[in-house]
Amino acid sequence: MSNRMVKLARRPKGMVVREDFKIEDGPVPEPGPGEFRIKVAYVSLDPAMRGWMNEGRSYVPPVQVGETMRGYAAGIVEASNNPAFKPGDAVQGLFGVQRYAVSKGERVFKVDTSQAPLQRWIGGLGMPGWTAYFGLLDVCQPKTAETVVVSAAAGAVGSVVGQIAKIKGCRAVGIAGGPEKCRYVVQELGFDACVDYKAGNLAANLKAAAPNGIDVYFENVGGEILDTVLLQMNLRGRIGICGLISAYNATELPPGPKNIRFILVQRLKVQGLLVFDWADRVPEAVAQLGQWYKEGKLKIREDVREGGVDAFPEVLNLLYTGGNLGKLVLKV
Amino acid sequence: MSNRMVKLARRPKGMVVREDFKIEDGPVPEPGPGEFRIKVAYVSLDPAMRGWMNEGRSYVPPVQVGETMRGYAAGIVEASNNPAFKPGDAVQGLFGVQRYAVSKGERVFKVDTSQAPLQRWIGGLGMPGWTAYFGLLDVCQPKTAETVVVSAAAGAVGSVVGQIAKIKGCRAVGIAGGPEKCRYVVQELGFDACVDYKAGNLAANLKAAAPNGIDVYFENVGGEILDTVLLQMNLRGRIGICGLISAYNATELPPGPKNIRFILVQRLKVQGLLVFDWADRVPEAVAQLGQWYKEGKLKIREDVREGGVDAFPEVLNLLYTGGNLGKLVLKV
Repeated sequence: MSNRMVKLARRPKGMVVREDFKIEDGPVPEPGPGEFRIKVAYVSLDPAMRGWMNEGRSYVPPVQVGETMRGYAAGIVEASNNPAFKPGDAVQGLFGVQRYAVSKGERVFKVDTSQAPLQRWIGGLGMPGWTAYFGLLDVCQPKTAETVVVSAAAGAVGSVVGQIAKIKGCRAVGIAGGPEKCRYVVQELGFDACVDYKAGNLAANLKAAAPNGIDVYFENVGGEILDTVLLQMNLRGRIGICGLISAYNATELPPGPKNIRFILVQRLKVQGLLVFDWADRVPEAVAQLGQWYKEGKLKIREDVREGGVDAFPEVLNLLYTGGNLGKLVLKV
Repeated sequence: MSNRMVKLARRPKGMVVREDFKIEDGPVPEPGPGEFRIKVAYVSLDPAMRGWMNEGRSYVPPVQVGETMRGYAAGIVEASNNPAFKPGDAVQGLFGVQRYAVSKGERVFKVDTSQAPLQRWIGGLGMPGWTAYFGLLDVCQPKTAETVVVSAAAGAVGSVVGQIAKIKGCRAVGIAGGPEKCRYVVQELGFDACVDYKAGNLAANLKAAAPNGIDVYFENVGGEILDTVLLQMNLRGRIGICGLISAYNATELPPGPKNIRFILVQRLKVQGLLVFDWADRVPEAVAQLGQWYKEGKLKIREDVREGGVDAFPEVLNLLYTGGNLGKLVLKV
């Protein structure tokens, strides 16, 4: 029994390659005073991970070369010197891309695996779900009968955004890549429509899917999609910027949205959002999402990949090539 | 005595040229029931005018080819069938680029020329002043000791924005083109600093002028300046988009801001603002700006050009080449 850790070997350029990481074995860590050890079961693959590998100013410090890759994960407490966490507890938190982690409990949440399987607590019932919940409701403030558009609609956050929009009485329109994802978004998740951005004619297809214009846009992608949406925003529309995945692997910054004039013309409110800002309200999101899930109003799906931490580089890239359907998770 | 009107002859491409307009003489208009006639004394040259000449979706319908050019102006009531406006009243409103206008009084405000000269009521005490007042205070919500940066700082709106920021206890930093404007902004208007964007090294100079980062950015320009500012915005900063003058004469849309990722990273709020949205609160702005003006806390300057309505095309272009210092006004 040993720990196995994915360490950053160098700063990647563009999409990650295996050589950007060094996979190391080491002793299983022992928890110190106030700490506990987690056996990691699932590591979440999140679009933001690519940004964490870059140098430069961001909302968290970059992962340093030589450090274990930061990662959101779920697992089971094995040994504990912390009275709040007992062996056998199922937990989720930033445990890193490794088999074992120790923690003091900061930003670690216990989860109820009788309510939903462990991997779901790092998906729709975990941080991606909270992001959707606070980002849509607090930042975008959708009103009944408004049209809510979300990009990466089949993704971990987007899929929950559209379903909450429906629960709130809005028209929910997704943007996703390919017919399979669009079918999933409409037929399984219950969105009113989904536009396949890979099919061409995005502007016309979006107009058809959102004939009354767009009141709320929940942005996960950026690039050309943002530019197209800007032209169809209604007066006093709101845009929540949750992610800009289209640029995360760019070696040179792509040009920004040409149509920012519409922020002025339509008096839009464009706001960046990061789930950490609602850290003190996580229990509210957990309770509400759990309730909707129990009532069958919120459908959640993971795309669980095998291969353990060794598979991290290839599995991560699926996010950027659109190769996953449902919340992408690596089984450790 | 005849009216003289500047009519749009065709849709301009890039900067306006004389041939884009047709200057016509006609009879002095007679006011109908409920109407009154204004003898226009000053026409305001506003950056937005260029956009009004373009086809396409905006916050107001475009000026049609053959129509008198829309223009904000000040003048004296000459004849009236409207009990609210009497001959001799000084008024301001959207009277057009012409010598005489008739109006029913919609969006027309009486002004007090004993308090300030007529041209000032279409400048710092008029719509540009109201834009600064509501845009800064309502949209950007600056707090004491925060750093407020404003572009086009020597302009009609920007000059008032920075002075209100000072009144509210903020650090006010202007961005303007050339040493003369920067000197005016700091020494006459009392900004804490002003960066000359034409001098190069904008990022470094801005950093020196705003060493604690930027909490509020009031945007009148767009383009490279916006991109530079985005990188220096503080957490939860606010950006009010009032204008994007750098693109108003573009024949092809320039690329947008590359650094929009910082909206997310810093959780910025970016909001478009248009003074019409505060139409019902104009008296509040008039009273407060007038009070500050009387107390000497608000300095206002016009750049009055001669030549009558005939000079309109050349005088308008001064806005886009930076050829004016102070609110640009055409004497009719």
